[in-house]
Amino acid sequence: MSKLWTDLVRQLKPYIPGEQPQDQQYIKLNTNENPYPPSPAVTRAINSFAIDDLRRYPDPESRELRQALATRTGLGLEQVFVGNGSDEVLAHSFKAFFEGQDKILFPDIGYSFYPVYCSLFQTGYQAIPLDSNFAINIEDYWQPNGGIIIANPNAPTGITLAPAAIRELLDHTDSLVIIDEAYVDFGADSAIALIADFPNLLVIQTFSKSRSLAGLRLGYALGHVDLIEGLNRVKNSFNSYPVDQLGSVAAIASLADEDYYQLCKKRIIRTRDWLSDALTNLGFEVLPSNSNFVFVRHASHPASDLYVELKKAGILVRHFNSLRIENFLRISIGTDDECESLIEVMKRLL
Amino acid sequence: MSKLWTDLVRQLKPYIPGEQPQDQQYIKLNTNENPYPPSPAVTRAINSFAIDDLRRYPDPESRELRQALATRTGLGLEQVFVGNGSDEVLAHSFKAFFEGQDKILFPDIGYSFYPVYCSLFQTGYQAIPLDSNFAINIEDYWQPNGGIIIANPNAPTGITLAPAAIRELLDHTDSLVIIDEAYVDFGADSAIALIADFPNLLVIQTFSKSRSLAGLRLGYALGHVDLIEGLNRVKNSFNSYPVDQLGSVAAIASLADEDYYQLCKKRIIRTRDWLSDALTNLGFEVLPSNSNFVFVRHASHPASDLYVELKKAGILVRHFNSLRIENFLRISIGTDDECESLIEVMKRLL
Repeated sequence: MSKLWTDLVRQLKPYIPGEQPQDQQYIKLNTNENPYPPSPAVTRAINSFAIDDLRRYPDPESRELRQALATRTGLGLEQVFVGNGSDEVLAHSFKAFFEGQDKILFPDIGYSFYPVYCSLFQTGYQAIPLDSNFAINIEDYWQPNGGIIIANPNAPTGITLAPAAIRELLDHTDSLVIIDEAYVDFGADSAIALIADFPNLLVIQTFSKSRSLAGLRLGYALGHVDLIEGLNRVKNSFNSYPVDQLGSVAAIASLADEDYYQLCKKRIIRTRDWLSDALTNLGFEVLPSNSNFVFVRHASHPASDLYVELKKAGILVRHFNSLRIENFLRISIGTDDECESLIEVMKRLL
Repeated sequence: MSKLWTDLVRQLKPYIPGEQPQDQQYIKLNTNENPYPPSPAVTRAINSFAIDDLRRYPDPESRELRQALATRTGLGLEQVFVGNGSDEVLAHSFKAFFEGQDKILFPDIGYSFYPVYCSLFQTGYQAIPLDSNFAINIEDYWQPNGGIIIANPNAPTGITLAPAAIRELLDHTDSLVIIDEAYVDFGADSAIALIADFPNLLVIQTFSKSRSLAGLRLGYALGHVDLIEGLNRVKNSFNSYPVDQLGSVAAIASLADEDYYQLCKKRIIRTRDWLSDALTNLGFEVLPSNSNFVFVRHASHPASDLYVELKKAGILVRHFNSLRIENFLRISIGTDDECESLIEVMKRLL
């Protein structure tokens, strides 16, 4: 600790991402990465990019990428904001909309970056408990609030809220509602269709999961033009050019290859179903997942032990040592081979 | 404006970057981009990168890139912080160190993002006037302060402060001093050598100018381990993975090609000297520049008119409509051909 740190920095408890070991080859099922590579169109786009142009700054407004997203989602260009990963987009959203008087609301079990943003931006919050099945009870959010943020599907549970429930939520509040759809492409319904009816709805998505581009850092927000303008005001007071040139061309190429996207998505859903059944057969409780991971617990084997034993066997999964979920493991959906290896090791461990 | 914006967002006056026109081909001398492409080693590194790996998150700690910078600067790994362009590194630095009680100090004419960060992070500041020759008088900073930030060479003046003056400044304050060295590689001396003596010195540099990598967004900070830890606390509460995989390999490749870097740098310095002489011969006052731009004014031709006429002639330069410098143009150093074209057009206009 340094006397030069501000008081705020002393108090921060930073987010801890899943391990990205640089030393050893693991079967890596811990950070919800896609087991399949990006579209071949991405490879072509990067390989045909004129590297000499990197001497130039990118378009600070990322118009081409935003237009591609607008076209895909049926929204206008001014309804799309892009950033350096959806984490940056989330951070700017907290700064732009969540510094009001009232506490914001989010589930007690959810993306563990939300309380960290609250700490960074000094936003008060109230964590709303999931029900005993780890589902969101939407009526719990019908109370005065300074904003609401929900991951849908929720992380790390994988459980989905139906669009009708989100509509009901929006019918009961004038505050900003952020639906964080990092995992929406693996079988859930997006709230994008509700944007036309609700100027207080911001939907956040990412290229990291379903588009296999975690390594390039691309996320985006969709909503009413006034919300996007608010985000731009923050972004343009922070970093004029958050999206680099290669990231932009890669993302555009990925959006253009719908067939490949559908193929990978279907494969992951199929593997998820297989893995869920196999884990159930081994005595695990598997929460119903619409995401690219499953959240599971075993009646007689502590998750912390299983995590350690799996790591020894060369398989990384994620264990959160947090209240209510300390006995769960979050397992990202890998290839069929990777998931079969996991099941083989589990059989040996149990 | 939206009622959902926080009060802070309503009050922001975002930074306005130089134009990046997408429609027309200009001789583009307005954003201090390097006229030469990145090293051929960068092209090789990107073209040989296994695109399939983009499905993975980058190393959140960017160890390889930080190690390459540590090796180059003679510092330890834990003395290096990297981010998504030096603007992001600056923003995190303001958040980490400049939210104290006292006003921070910076020159009245300097990088115009500094007051924007102050607005975003609600940091008080006092702008210290440059002297009548647009130079920094270091004694003006010997007063109580919550921190000091100076661009060296200064932007948009291009004028340099000697390391002895920076040492003198550091001898007179215990607050954090940031030396923003975006332009240091074009003939000025870095303050890196002072880091060993001053735990309150943070030096910020970028790959955007001398390394021709503006399009990939890479900046870094160098300083005492405690300062870097403070930056990491903020970064890890904002975005775990700000530096993407391709940016990292490109930056490492660039650092490895010292010969090319030296060659481009020398060319730009030679062209700058030629352009300075040619503009002087046309009746311009040219401030003494150690950067990759010149800051010039003409006794009988308003800068605003020249800016418009140059743009009509297909040449973009930067005009800041700000107090004391409203009659200056900032002209980035282009290739010899580009600078000769500028002089030809100027001859016609004057």
